[in-house]
Amino acid sequence: MVHLPLGFRFAGVSSNIKSRPGARDVTLIVSDVPCIAAGVYTTNQIVAAPVVVSRSRTPSNTVRGVVVNSGNANACTGTRGHQDAVEMTRLAASAVDPKGKLTADQFLVMSTGVIGRFLPMEKVAAGINAAAQQLSGNEQGFLNACDGILTTDIARKIADRKFDLNGKTTHIVGMCKGAGMIGPKMATMLAILITDAPMEPAQAQRLLQSAANKSFNCISVEGHMSTNDTLVMLAAQPTADRPAIQGAEEIAFSSQLDEMAIELAKKIPDDGEGATHLIEIRIVGANTDADADAVARSIALSNLVKTAITGGDPNWGRIVSAAGYAGVPIRPEYTALEINGIPLFDRGEPLPFEASVVSKSIKGSKLTEIDLRVGLGPGSAKHWTTDLNTEYVRFNSEYTT
Amino acid sequence: MVHLPLGFRFAGVSSNIKSRPGARDVTLIVSDVPCIAAGVYTTNQIVAAPVVVSRSRTPSNTVRGVVVNSGNANACTGTRGHQDAVEMTRLAASAVDPKGKLTADQFLVMSTGVIGRFLPMEKVAAGINAAAQQLSGNEQGFLNACDGILTTDIARKIADRKFDLNGKTTHIVGMCKGAGMIGPKMATMLAILITDAPMEPAQAQRLLQSAANKSFNCISVEGHMSTNDTLVMLAAQPTADRPAIQGAEEIAFSSQLDEMAIELAKKIPDDGEGATHLIEIRIVGANTDADADAVARSIALSNLVKTAITGGDPNWGRIVSAAGYAGVPIRPEYTALEINGIPLFDRGEPLPFEASVVSKSIKGSKLTEIDLRVGLGPGSAKHWTTDLNTEYVRFNSEYTT
Repeated sequence: MVHLPLGFRFAGVSSNIKSRPGARDVTLIVSDVPCIAAGVYTTNQIVAAPVVVSRSRTPSNTVRGVVVNSGNANACTGTRGHQDAVEMTRLAASAVDPKGKLTADQFLVMSTGVIGRFLPMEKVAAGINAAAQQLSGNEQGFLNACDGILTTDIARKIADRKFDLNGKTTHIVGMCKGAGMIGPKMATMLAILITDAPMEPAQAQRLLQSAANKSFNCISVEGHMSTNDTLVMLAAQPTADRPAIQGAEEIAFSSQLDEMAIELAKKIPDDGEGATHLIEIRIVGANTDADADAVARSIALSNLVKTAITGGDPNWGRIVSAAGYAGVPIRPEYTALEINGIPLFDRGEPLPFEASVVSKSIKGSKLTEIDLRVGLGPGSAKHWTTDLNTEYVRFNSEYTT
Repeated sequence: MVHLPLGFRFAGVSSNIKSRPGARDVTLIVSDVPCIAAGVYTTNQIVAAPVVVSRSRTPSNTVRGVVVNSGNANACTGTRGHQDAVEMTRLAASAVDPKGKLTADQFLVMSTGVIGRFLPMEKVAAGINAAAQQLSGNEQGFLNACDGILTTDIARKIADRKFDLNGKTTHIVGMCKGAGMIGPKMATMLAILITDAPMEPAQAQRLLQSAANKSFNCISVEGHMSTNDTLVMLAAQPTADRPAIQGAEEIAFSSQLDEMAIELAKKIPDDGEGATHLIEIRIVGANTDADADAVARSIALSNLVKTAITGGDPNWGRIVSAAGYAGVPIRPEYTALEINGIPLFDRGEPLPFEASVVSKSIKGSKLTEIDLRVGLGPGSAKHWTTDLNTEYVRFNSEYTT
């Protein structure tokens, strides 16, 4: 059972944007009253039209919903693409309230799928209208909405939290998508988090950015940053009766939000037929957290590290050397490495170890844990990624356009 | 026929450091008189012992030779590794001149192979002694030396130039190695260039760095920077009779050197059973050459771009979006892309094109040419890389240690 916040309705329908018959490809999420919305977006300079539109509308306290299509990213589509993204929000507003009291700018928009093709707007319009008819506050509506944002994901990705906040039962629910190891198109990450905790727009933005920095910004598949990455949070409007959370309340909420975001984010590299390992990289001893993050990312993006894990090969030189070219200062003389808790390298010298034992521990578990010390500083970071195997290459080198 | 400069002798022998019986794994190159030496080295902070030793000895005007072993990188080997690297140069000096007139610091040293294992010094010493016995100024000696530096390379990599410099016949010859697509260990790049053109040490260093920036610094396989990358140039000592090249002579020499270095460097991504395409990426319109280089590199390191080329997929969104996250400013509104001369994207808008024609042109040639404009600036760059296919993953995920 998913713990859904009250006041939100969901739908996900099929409108034949995706080539697979019957696959849901339009999602609509509606708040019964104007809600708080915050957003974190791709930093790619080649940015899809829906990102430009949604970015200009957050943070906000007048948002009434989010409209999403999958199967087409509406990216690299110029002026027409921008018009289409705006039109999606206009269609959503008029479909949700045919009396015309809602405006386009009260909706956020997301797209994911192939780049460089114009949206089939007739199909999109039909999908939005159908979704508006099916809006529901129950679990099935939510699950349909979750399915409507997926592309090549193997599994639906959801997480929820229900907790007490100063005597008030509070909910956070989230859905996300990421193409995992098998993104034949672009591994766009989309995520929508919804809570009934009341907060101000700037506060929502701050809490969401903080959660993103610990979760969605700490995962990678192949490190190819999408034109469409979007993370949005919808939250309740503060009222006289229930003002914005603050102090200890905010700290408790933030902690629940961070944890849920991490749970959700880890599902992305964990997904996919191709991925045989989820790799958790933990760095300590860097000068700063940002330096530690750069080291973790350098290791996570090394094909040589990824393929070594695929093969259960304790080829630790690949890990240590990837740390050495991360572009931030490290202290080779204090460098120490463990794989799955087994020490392999310490203070710049190789340690004797039983290769078969390390290999067995990598091969015997979906999760591989890499612990690397790079100096004596206070900086630390975590990063989650996948291994790299022939399935990934096969899927991504298929002729798809 | 290779055009060898006079005054240098070569040998490459097998000393069983590599597991493959009979494979040459010790190379010795000797200058009959003290020569000029310049070097360019890995910028990885995790740096192998031979790099530390050679780096401290260039630029120089007293060098008598270079000793190389393959099959073991002598990297991440701490104090003992450093002692072993110095010992290799001492062994080379005494083997080349048993009378003891040569000193260890007149030799440079390089190693390539597996990381984190101590050198088998008895085998290395035997190899150096055997190589000193076989030193020869003829082509066979040179070819043996070229083979002795290879690891998983499929093909021997050499290039040469013979040209007139102000009435004097001048030679440059070079050898290099790089593991190409099939680097089950580390894709260490080693290269040695030798010329009979006379020059000063600082001048040699400047010319070599300039050539490296246009060649060996513009190639990638998977972007994993080695602990051992080393590029060395040996040049003739200026004499009263033939002083250091200068002015128009230097410009002519530099142009020959650059071209030869590019020819040699391209052989690295071009090599390997795994690599089905050599990808040449040409960027124009960036604000600076350095910005253009960053864009080229971002595209070259994208697994999604590489796999698209493997599959002959004109999935140009992957290329354009990789440019967008290179971390340098681009102008999306002036962005234009051609693959193999076929325009696909112009000024931020997709162009109509026949997918099957582009696919055919990619599949029909080993070379894929990507031309990307990213703005209206004067900055340009070239970069050469490989595609990514299942062979690469298979080789690199094999259990190798």
